[in-house]
Amino acid sequence: MILLFTDFGLEGPYVGQVKHMLAREAPGVPVIDLFADAPPFEPRLGAYLLAAHAWMMEDGDVLLGIVDPDVGTLRVPLVVRADRRWYVGPDNGLFELVARRAREVRSWRIAWQPPRLSASFHGRDLFAPVAAQLARGEAPPGPLHEMTRFADWPDDLAAVVHVDRYGNAMTGLRAATLAGDTRLVAGGREIARARTFADVPRGEALWYENANGLAEIAVNGGRAADVLGLAPGSGVGLSSSSR
Amino acid sequence: MILLFTDFGLEGPYVGQVKHMLAREAPGVPVIDLFADAPPFEPRLGAYLLAAHAWMMEDGDVLLGIVDPDVGTLRVPLVVRADRRWYVGPDNGLFELVARRAREVRSWRIAWQPPRLSASFHGRDLFAPVAAQLARGEAPPGPLHEMTRFADWPDDLAAVVHVDRYGNAMTGLRAATLAGDTRLVAGGREIARARTFADVPRGEALWYENANGLAEIAVNGGRAADVLGLAPGSGVGLSSSSR
Amino acid sequence: MILLFTDFGLEGPYVGQVKHMLAREAPGVPVIDLFADAPPFEPRLGAYLLAAHAWMMEDGDVLLGIVDPDVGTLRVPLVVRADRRWYVGPDNGLFELVARRAREVRSWRIAWQPPRLSASFHGRDLFAPVAAQLARGEAPPGPLHEMTRFADWPDDLAAVVHVDRYGNAMTGLRAATLAGDTRLVAGGREIARARTFADVPRGEALWYENANGLAEIAVNGGRAADVLGLAPGSGVGLSSSSR
Repeated sequence: MILLFTDFGLEGPYVGQVKHMLAREAPGVPVIDLFADAPPFEPRLGAYLLAAHAWMMEDGDVLLGIVDPDVGTLRVPLVVRADRRWYVGPDNGLFELVARRAREVRSWRIAWQPPRLSASFHGRDLFAPVAAQLARGEAPPGPLHEMTRFADWPDDLAAVVHVDRYGNAMTGLRAATLAGDTRLVAGGREIARARTFADVPRGEALWYENANGLAEIAVNGGRAADVLGLAPGSGVGLSSSSR
Repeated sequence: MILLFTDFGLEGPYVGQVKHMLAREAPGVPVIDLFADAPPFEPRLGAYLLAAHAWMMEDGDVLLGIVDPDVGTLRVPLVVRADRRWYVGPDNGLFELVARRAREVRSWRIAWQPPRLSASFHGRDLFAPVAAQLARGEAPPGPLHEMTRFADWPDDLAAVVHVDRYGNAMTGLRAATLAGDTRLVAGGREIARARTFADVPRGEALWYENANGLAEIAVNGGRAADVLGLAPGSGVGLSSSSR
Repeated sequence: MILLFTDFGLEGPYVGQVKHMLAREAPGVPVIDLFADAPPFEPRLGAYLLAAHAWMMEDGDVLLGIVDPDVGTLRVPLVVRADRRWYVGPDNGLFELVARRAREVRSWRIAWQPPRLSASFHGRDLFAPVAAQLARGEAPPGPLHEMTRFADWPDDLAAVVHVDRYGNAMTGLRAATLAGDTRLVAGGREIARARTFADVPRGEALWYENANGLAEIAVNGGRAADVLGLAPGSGVGLSSSSR
């Protein structure tokens, strides 16, 4: 199985051409659109979002992750093998958190280049063929290089990493790492934890552990992102009692 | 075949994670995105929309229908078997019309729970595994319960149930139930039936039988929803000569 | 493999019902959403966009192209076989450029009609079953007719054919047909060619050969369509030194 995690959006030909390439190079392998609207050009925000959404993967699955602001510069694909799952994408930190949280990790920077490489669409021309090769059960091409690490990134990110269509703001904080009485500070408000929307009065803000384990900020009956002025990248504070 | 009918939108991870679960639990079964933008949190509007769009299903197909405003409360999946097709989703009336219009119906409320059940995403954790099980040709899990009915809902709904990207407003009225001279009243105008857009002058409103049999309100060369002030849930009047 | 190229958008049931029909009529054949937001009702603009995005097709692949402003009038599907690939859609010029650029072309207008043909959704009822038949390896149905040609359309179109989510404006001009010093004139500015965004100062406009060979207008760090006032159909000038 191949999972797509990109900042392409679903508009235009971008996701379609990546899937076209995958269907040509790995026929019969299911391809799932896991996330098409990761924060554009923000691999650091994307890294926390990706790590939270990869937990359903199984042995041998391949995640093709493309958030690639530096396309057109010298770029090689990074291949990460973490707990028997594969991750393919640019070497800009997008897989830093998934690697850091794995028990077993190996990673390679790939020097291989396809016969036809456009200047602006390495997702289709370079990363997709590598992902297809792994999904076919083959080894990654080319010689082994040390992986780039992003040691100064925190284990959890106190910032918004995604706003969904309901205006809820996912943070890069895993709820399980936060004490039960932790308050998040966003938009000038202190926000307490709740189990679900109905636990607070209408119009009130809350945070809760979402279905992928992230701390998510919401407003009962409202759009938290609008009410609190939040967007991907907005910082979130933690009250002193926490962690 | 599994058909998805949801109010998730295509943004974020919601449809993707449901499809990830289906691909894991029912490998090889085709999954079709039939409708991702049903009216949010409105199972009553969705029920008429769903019933209109399910006619292409064949024996054994499974429709996974998720419009679930009450997720997080006590919720069990409803499984409906209507004319040899399966419908899986919350027991909030979403399948009321498809059941009512079928010749043979049985339905079950399912007490089964998955080992991992999030508070906010039963579509992925609870409904998808049940749909996958049916798509694999197995019986629904657990004991049989009486289905909840919504007897006070009309057979056809005189309201807008969807506005498409062109601004056309689908109603919950089946065109075949309306006399030919029926006029719909919306946005303060009386609107006559036409076969197609070109039958009325530019800028004029019309209603016609759409490709799924619903009465749909349009404006030739314009966006009916904007011109007439219509949104999902807007009431539609019927002139006295009809039905 | 079947590729979808439409102006349906991804909202509502339109793409989903086409894919439902394809899954019924050509089970097991992969279907790729290549382009869902071609310029609405503009087969002439779409023709250049489609020709630019079809190059990855392989022998026997079928492209289902639906940009169909005249649905509801007398309409027959056009089937084009160009260099061993199939194209199915309305006979309104959408395949004119792909046909013109092929080495071997045959084309047929199809008189066949399905048992159930709606007035407004020939994409699902008429074009999809024909595409499915070809994808199954069968010949197109019905007698052979001469293809409609659009001889007055230029080989390359000096106009915007698509604006992507980043505000970049794809033109109908193949970059390879333009001299290196060609300047494009758009929004009152003369715009020089660059290899990539970083080659011009921030806020400056450039044009470059995009990943599908088209001349694309962009602004480094900005949205070209907004800065220059461009939308699908906007004309683009060529400075005198070119071609």
